[in-house]
Amino acid sequence: MAEAASQDLLLAAAFVSDAQYNRNIPFKTSPEAVRLYYLYNHWIMRTAAYFFIFLNLSLALFEEPAVYPLPFLVTSVVEVLCLLVFFGRLTHFAKVTPRNVFWKDTKNICIMVAILLSLTDLAIYGVLRIYNVRSIRWSRIVRPIFLVNFAESRQIRRAFRSIRNTLPEITYVFLLFMFSLLMFSLMALKLFGERNLLTAEGLPYFRNYLEIVFDLYVLVTTANSPDVMMPAFDFSSWYALFFIGFVIVNTYIFMSLFLAVVYNNYRKHLKNEIRKLAYMKRRKMIEAFNLLKEEEGAQFVVREARWKQLVKLVAPDTSNSHRELLLRISDDEQKGFIDKKSFVQLADLLNIQVITLKIRSHPLGQWMPRVYQSAVSQFLRSMVRHRGFVWTYDVIILINAIFIALDEETPYISYAEWVFLALYIIEILLKVYTYEPRAFFGKNQFWNWFDTLIIFAALTATILNTTLKSTTKYNSQQILDIVFILRVLRLIRIVDSIQRFRAIMNTLINIVPTMLTFGGLTLVVYCVFAIIGMELFHGKIQFFPANSNAPHALECGNPALKDSLFARGKYCKNNFNNFASSFIVLMELTVVNQWHDILLQPAKLYFIAFHIVMVIIIVNIFVSFILEAFFVEYSLEKTPPPPPQEGSLLDNMESTEHDLEGDSGAKPPSKGLVFKIASKRYRTVDALLQRMFEAEIPLEDEGPSFEEILNLAPTAPVPSHPTSESAA
Amino acid sequence: MAEAASQDLLLAAAFVSDAQYNRNIPFKTSPEAVRLYYLYNHWIMRTAAYFFIFLNLSLALFEEPAVYPLPFLVTSVVEVLCLLVFFGRLTHFAKVTPRNVFWKDTKNICIMVAILLSLTDLAIYGVLRIYNVRSIRWSRIVRPIFLVNFAESRQIRRAFRSIRNTLPEITYVFLLFMFSLLMFSLMALKLFGERNLLTAEGLPYFRNYLEIVFDLYVLVTTANSPDVMMPAFDFSSWYALFFIGFVIVNTYIFMSLFLAVVYNNYRKHLKNEIRKLAYMKRRKMIEAFNLLKEEEGAQFVVREARWKQLVKLVAPDTSNSHRELLLRISDDEQKGFIDKKSFVQLADLLNIQVITLKIRSHPLGQWMPRVYQSAVSQFLRSMVRHRGFVWTYDVIILINAIFIALDEETPYISYAEWVFLALYIIEILLKVYTYEPRAFFGKNQFWNWFDTLIIFAALTATILNTTLKSTTKYNSQQILDIVFILRVLRLIRIVDSIQRFRAIMNTLINIVPTMLTFGGLTLVVYCVFAIIGMELFHGKIQFFPANSNAPHALECGNPALKDSLFARGKYCKNNFNNFASSFIVLMELTVVNQWHDILLQPAKLYFIAFHIVMVIIIVNIFVSFILEAFFVEYSLEKTPPPPPQEGSLLDNMESTEHDLEGDSGAKPPSKGLVFKIASKRYRTVDALLQRMFEAEIPLEDEGPSFEEILNLAPTAPVPSHPTSESAA
Repeated sequence: MAEAASQDLLLAAAFVSDAQYNRNIPFKTSPEAVRLYYLYNHWIMRTAAYFFIFLNLSLALFEEPAVYPLPFLVTSVVEVLCLLVFFGRLTHFAKVTPRNVFWKDTKNICIMVAILLSLTDLAIYGVLRIYNVRSIRWSRIVRPIFLVNFAESRQIRRAFRSIRNTLPEITYVFLLFMFSLLMFSLMALKLFGERNLLTAEGLPYFRNYLEIVFDLYVLVTTANSPDVMMPAFDFSSWYALFFIGFVIVNTYIFMSLFLAVVYNNYRKHLKNEIRKLAYMKRRKMIEAFNLLKEEEGAQFVVREARWKQLVKLVAPDTSNSHRELLLRISDDEQKGFIDKKSFVQLADLLNIQVITLKIRSHPLGQWMPRVYQSAVSQFLRSMVRHRGFVWTYDVIILINAIFIALDEETPYISYAEWVFLALYIIEILLKVYTYEPRAFFGKNQFWNWFDTLIIFAALTATILNTTLKSTTKYNSQQILDIVFILRVLRLIRIVDSIQRFRAIMNTLINIVPTMLTFGGLTLVVYCVFAIIGMELFHGKIQFFPANSNAPHALECGNPALKDSLFARGKYCKNNFNNFASSFIVLMELTVVNQWHDILLQPAKLYFIAFHIVMVIIIVNIFVSFILEAFFVEYSLEKTPPPPPQEGSLLDNMESTEHDLEGDSGAKPPSKGLVFKIASKRYRTVDALLQRMFEAEIPLEDEGPSFEEILNLAPTAPVPSHPTSESAA
Repeated sequence: MAEAASQDLLLAAAFVSDAQYNRNIPFKTSPEAVRLYYLYNHWIMRTAAYFFIFLNLSLALFEEPAVYPLPFLVTSVVEVLCLLVFFGRLTHFAKVTPRNVFWKDTKNICIMVAILLSLTDLAIYGVLRIYNVRSIRWSRIVRPIFLVNFAESRQIRRAFRSIRNTLPEITYVFLLFMFSLLMFSLMALKLFGERNLLTAEGLPYFRNYLEIVFDLYVLVTTANSPDVMMPAFDFSSWYALFFIGFVIVNTYIFMSLFLAVVYNNYRKHLKNEIRKLAYMKRRKMIEAFNLLKEEEGAQFVVREARWKQLVKLVAPDTSNSHRELLLRISDDEQKGFIDKKSFVQLADLLNIQVITLKIRSHPLGQWMPRVYQSAVSQFLRSMVRHRGFVWTYDVIILINAIFIALDEETPYISYAEWVFLALYIIEILLKVYTYEPRAFFGKNQFWNWFDTLIIFAALTATILNTTLKSTTKYNSQQILDIVFILRVLRLIRIVDSIQRFRAIMNTLINIVPTMLTFGGLTLVVYCVFAIIGMELFHGKIQFFPANSNAPHALECGNPALKDSLFARGKYCKNNFNNFASSFIVLMELTVVNQWHDILLQPAKLYFIAFHIVMVIIIVNIFVSFILEAFFVEYSLEKTPPPPPQEGSLLDNMESTEHDLEGDSGAKPPSKGLVFKIASKRYRTVDALLQRMFEAEIPLEDEGPSFEEILNLAPTAPVPSHPTSESAA
């Protein structure tokens, strides 16, 4: 009986922690599966999985065409190792989830197919290599699948789902856009085709229909903006109207339409996903509740003791006082048990980051109270606390900026650098002296951490550089560059002094996690296109250093490029000769400008495909991300502070803590335990939307079953409250 | 007494028509002021005002530096005439509105100051001209003020207000962006400044701080994207990271942030404006109600007879049956009077475009029934109605597209053009033969109108061209160009055949009015910048035709431009030598690409200012326009059809109409009067938001007074329902 109870507890804890992290893994309910589930989600296992995913992706750096060449044997052994790890993780996952769920999940199938494909390709390539037959390592483009399909990359997967759902809508707009492009091209052919005009390079202008289509497509991206117009414009000013009309219709209206479609679908889809998550969480919390419930009067409840055991299991790191606080919030009438309504909120309560900051006297004050409380020390501390201290350092930063700009190898200024470093170090020491060190380096003190890291990194690098210089009479370029960058970064601090700037900066810092998802998305697209690009264009263009006397050094080693804009612009290093430079070329193509010059003739289709995928879809998704994140931030700025009820509870808690600590009570405000809710955690689009949606679900509504949730149609984004059919 | 009653009626009608068109003019309540008010809003007066505003703006085309030079005397006489008209219109307006309102309104003061300034400047310039002293016509930049500040341009003014309200927020973001730019520039100076690198043109690379700042500002607009990176990238691949970081932070994040700020403020501000409008409209309708009300039992009402007189006054063009319909909707229980609640909706009811389409037999059917009902005719008509007819013509259009692309002066193909023209004309004739002509050319039959106009314009132009050719053996280039354009435009029709495309096209057509506002905004900004640009850069660059042998023809007449990118790109025609080419240069700058090449050295500040105003603010507003319009369209697509209650009323109305017409009743569905609500009119952002907001105002709430409404703070965009303090 006791064992069964503890098993229930274990299972319930698994449910709660699953809900807490929105993991969304349906797992078997046997005790050993639950233990495996814990292991699966252990941070070491997750980190290892990510490590091998990125190792596998970065293999492209070492395989031919390589940035850092390694023998084929080494890379293939590493790849096999990665694939083994992926297979192991997948097997682990299979042990955790019920069999039918596992086999119905596309992402698991995807991973298996990808592993098989990779192994097959590796084997074929290896065998052919022995017989000296070159073949294509085509399986390399499936590698990003591992990044997308492992259970951890929920966000990236969601973004891809969002793209997939946007595709039909965007295809229609795209077709219409292409139609408009073709019409304009036809018009251009009729208007300019027989004028015998020449471009600035003396080439025929607008003669061939397909070339016109391409030129006008490039004009949509504005990359050849006035050039493509100039010959016609020189011929007659009225022809400018054609191009103006074209730009208005295609660049402004259609491109905005793309953004509108992507943004609209992104929001619609996000809502649906969040709804699924909220239902899933509710469902899991109810499962946990049902495992632990006992009868109490007319209702089922969870008793305090069990609840505490549960919390201890789910979040073993929380302090006693934190647990007390959570209990007080859940059982606000102190009845000794927690009802269903409060219980289902546990996952969210656990997610609220509570900073347990103990306002106690400075360690120095305890260690040598006489010195710390002396008049000089007191004066020093009040000085540091004064507004003028910040202003003084703002002025110092500005002077420093001027010195950095001047820095001209004169010894006087290089000494000044030491002075500034010393001043900054003194500032940090003074602040640590004045404020409590643990508060100063608290989790949410972004700027303090930033300052300290930058200053000490700069100190280390400067010392290192000086040592190198005095011993070997030689400046290490890398170290010097880092020193320069660190010096300039130091100046960013000044932004923190102005309230309004700080607010914008905080918004930007808050949306960093969202942007990382976008980074993952970009990585996947870049990887695929880089690998294809390397297969197609590898070696077509060579880069020679400026003083090279190789043949055709100025034409990038390719006689066909003689006199081309490509060679004239010295773009030789923009090539697909290895993974790293492919990435840089793709980055340039994302930025769009001059892309028609960067590309080679046969590559047009490749570049148009990249443009459609990256610029039209992904960059618009990124803009949607930022718009949405900013709007959420903006709406949060206006929301009133949290309801007083919760606040008063917190106050209670504070006094309770004082009692618990058995403090002498001489100086309660300066010594004691204060909880501060770091609401930052909620400041992401996801979390906010989720909370908003949860508020809409009535408590009695347990939501659809797991199966139903997974199959919720995205076409019904507004929930039709299935209360009647699913209320338990 | 009767006169007083008719005066009340007149005044009430003025209130209603003001509410109907959202004119927002507070007018005096004396009978003669009301008559003046009607005159002021007469369409001839309004059109005349617009005509003189645009005449005044277009003077820039004829004044030095002129596209079409006219003597100074002519332009100054025209300008004085325009100013007189503006003054007259303002005086008219002053007679209509109460004096204190008139003098408190900034836009009236603006117009007066602008008139004074223009006259003063004109006088000074004229006098100086007599003494042959050249001076600057600085007052020309105040001309757009007339476009903005006349009461008619509510939308443009609102957009400007929106910009003004966005400024503080955007300034902060801009300062932060500039700070980031300065930091990156400092970093670039430290990293690359002492490397002695050279650009592709052999110039020193990243040596001077200010030049770096400018180069990186240009990089933010992506205009010099790979070029600015190449020297550093060639030196070391790692330096690409600096530029990638720069682009991510500044181009992607900050530019999206600008869009987010502009969009957010645009929405916030729009809501507030709409709220004001809705309150104003409600207030006016209540004023009108109070003028006409009579006691009926416990409540005040407006009797049917008076109501009809009112509607006749407000909308003299509505048919009897339309008025009956409105009455039935307002007095749905047929009590013989209209209560307050129904009365205040009158303005909106009048705005609903009701198409009175009489389903009656074809005129030919009445004229020569035997022929029209014959078997051949019936077969013809069923053929035209068949889906295959549309498909056949789609195929014909496609074939035509191929013929247009081929058109190579071969006689065979030029005959084909006549065949296609004939086919299209036959199509239109067949359609008119089959469908009722008045239904075919109905107000909302956009595509039918489009088709017919294009075809007949093409027919006229082709005949004209052939005549010219056969008589003078000379193709008129202009006419030929128009023929070409019309031929291609014909092909657009194919879009209409695909349901989903039609939906997108309709969205686009619906947002055209919104885009016109943006056009006005752009016009104002372009005018100001063009006039400043002409003063600053006039004559600096000359354009010579290709075969010119003038000195420095290749350097645009400016020896300083020798070997510059500007001359190499043959950009000579991009100059500020007259109003028209200034507009084209500004258009190119709006598109952004190559703007750093187009500009001359001293013009950097001018161009940066233009970039900030046009690209960062106005283009973002335009994108916001389109996003919002598209979202509204999208949300409308999903809204259910209008409530059945109203629908059934309409059904009643239909049958009532049958009775009224005294029809024989043989074929009610094919003969009779059917009302169709053209809901398109509501499909603008404004109208939708207004309706949504009106639904939120409770009927008892008469809203704040006129004065209060005008001073509603934009900082309180969500109405706090001032019911308690202002309920009458």
